[in-house]
Amino acid sequence: MSRDGRRIEMRHGAGGPAMRELVGSLFARGAPMGIEGGVGLGALDDGAALRLGERWLVFTTDGHVIDPPFFPGGDIGRLAVCGAVNDLAVMGATDVLGLSLAVVVEEGYAHADLERIQASIEAACREADTRVLTGDTKVMRRGEIDGVVLTTSAIGLVREGGDPVRDAGLRPEDEILVTGTIGDHGMAVMTRRHDLSVGAGDGELLSDVAPLNGLIAAALAAGGPAVVAMKDPTRGGVASALHEMAQKSGVGVVLEEERLPVRPAVRAACELLGIDPLQVANEGKALLGVRPEASDAVLAALHAHPLGKHARRIGRCTATRVGSLILDTGFGRRLVTESEGELLPRIC
Amino acid sequence: MSRDGRRIEMRHGAGGPAMRELVGSLFARGAPMGIEGGVGLGALDDGAALRLGERWLVFTTDGHVIDPPFFPGGDIGRLAVCGAVNDLAVMGATDVLGLSLAVVVEEGYAHADLERIQASIEAACREADTRVLTGDTKVMRRGEIDGVVLTTSAIGLVREGGDPVRDAGLRPEDEILVTGTIGDHGMAVMTRRHDLSVGAGDGELLSDVAPLNGLIAAALAAGGPAVVAMKDPTRGGVASALHEMAQKSGVGVVLEEERLPVRPAVRAACELLGIDPLQVANEGKALLGVRPEASDAVLAALHAHPLGKHARRIGRCTATRVGSLILDTGFGRRLVTESEGELLPRIC
Repeated sequence: MSRDGRRIEMRHGAGGPAMRELVGSLFARGAPMGIEGGVGLGALDDGAALRLGERWLVFTTDGHVIDPPFFPGGDIGRLAVCGAVNDLAVMGATDVLGLSLAVVVEEGYAHADLERIQASIEAACREADTRVLTGDTKVMRRGEIDGVVLTTSAIGLVREGGDPVRDAGLRPEDEILVTGTIGDHGMAVMTRRHDLSVGAGDGELLSDVAPLNGLIAAALAAGGPAVVAMKDPTRGGVASALHEMAQKSGVGVVLEEERLPVRPAVRAACELLGIDPLQVANEGKALLGVRPEASDAVLAALHAHPLGKHARRIGRCTATRVGSLILDTGFGRRLVTESEGELLPRIC
Repeated sequence: MSRDGRRIEMRHGAGGPAMRELVGSLFARGAPMGIEGGVGLGALDDGAALRLGERWLVFTTDGHVIDPPFFPGGDIGRLAVCGAVNDLAVMGATDVLGLSLAVVVEEGYAHADLERIQASIEAACREADTRVLTGDTKVMRRGEIDGVVLTTSAIGLVREGGDPVRDAGLRPEDEILVTGTIGDHGMAVMTRRHDLSVGAGDGELLSDVAPLNGLIAAALAAGGPAVVAMKDPTRGGVASALHEMAQKSGVGVVLEEERLPVRPAVRAACELLGIDPLQVANEGKALLGVRPEASDAVLAALHAHPLGKHARRIGRCTATRVGSLILDTGFGRRLVTESEGELLPRIC
């Protein structure tokens, strides 16, 4: 038992280095990286992968504590479905067998709000061509929990003959693709929470929360084993996701700033709040690391899917600056850091 | 959307009829009972069962909100592992592939307490011969959640050639077995929470929280398909579990009061608080419905296992009083009702 009086801080849930340190030293301590050739807890990937007969089964879980639970472009129900589906998808398990849903709700919560959340869960499941298979409901007394927390787990299969896609498979010269604009989810929630209004001429701020299994299946069909790494840039944004991929893979990553797809409304809100869009959470985007010879084909497949129209090639892996993320601004290069603190608590 | 201003009440999380009504009308509405011959959300069983190649895969989830998180005989970590493992086991999936663990913790929570919980998770996994495969960590601000909530999901396989065991398979004349004493978990937590002391001469009150996959595997090896129904009597106790089994199976159940195994300390605490031990949660017990010709063999297998020493035959199914639970006191018979309210909030 530790004797040093340490306490949990908000940064331990922020998706960055403090969280990875906590998880690695506590919940995943001693856990194997791999299990019988698969992916174990120790790998700290988006899920675990187990061989089951002829196929790979992927298993993942996510707690959802978003505040507010209803936000522009979605709600906690849609988020809980998409969060689980997307964690499977970025491991290559686009054939989603189903989800579990554990609800913890505060005494006095409005039944009508649960109805809205459930309708949203049902709609998101239809979009992802999946279903909730099993569930659990707990009630806490008034004041013991703020509203509602949803935890979803999901199980899915990697396509026949395919292997799970890790977040650690990058090599120098691999290209980094993003499936669409960045920062939409975080800024939609943030501005709603603080009741900020961003110039209407810049368009509405809407979360991008969406299930990516169809889009990722299309990318894998086009790229096959040349899609060597994937991750969904949720908490901590593109910056945390690429740091983790670069560190685990043993490469550097150089991003070209002018190629980063950021909606004008998101850029305006980020400037207003002094936040880097690279550090903002996304809930309907994926980062793909692709061998250079396959990147045109993968990008074409992404563009052909409704959720991938704004996909871009945004960077490239290097043999130097291992574990670092570098932004090429066109005028020079600077290191992109992860946010150490908690910019946006309860963003997902 | 409902327009009637209904609010969630504590009884909606109590494991009884109010919870079943909420889940059936909301979270599981329209969900199929079965999926390709398996068990779906609509069945409201302990988990879902899917055919995967030659085997049945069972998938289950449980949120754990117990207060206090450390209690005599266990803690929330042990409970979270055992809750998931036992839901699999009573579906017949005693080969546990692994668990997911989603942690939601309050800002300011003591790191040392998380260390204790993690040590307990590791120990319970060793007992159950399983492991945590994947996880998630979220932090809520001080006052937004009371301490820590753990949600575990689990995946497991039914033994080769076997089918999932439902909670709805009872027929008249089937015998009801319980794997040990009842009421231990609920009364240990309840007396700790209220700082009650029960006469020391009656022995210590300890939770029974334990992983049952080994015990259930032994029962299934002895009874095979003659083990026709199982359930773990957690929230709502033996009364709720048998009501649900009787209603789904279309039988009545008669219990013999003198056969019910209740420890003296549990009985004393129940009398002090005016609680029926049949309504108290258990976390290391299972109810088995067994064809009469196999019940001796199954009982012998239970007795031979360290967790089944106090197993008993406690009742029998009838073709009359369908959906009812009847207690034969030796002097007469009375109906056992489920608790409609919430006797013991946050008991698991």
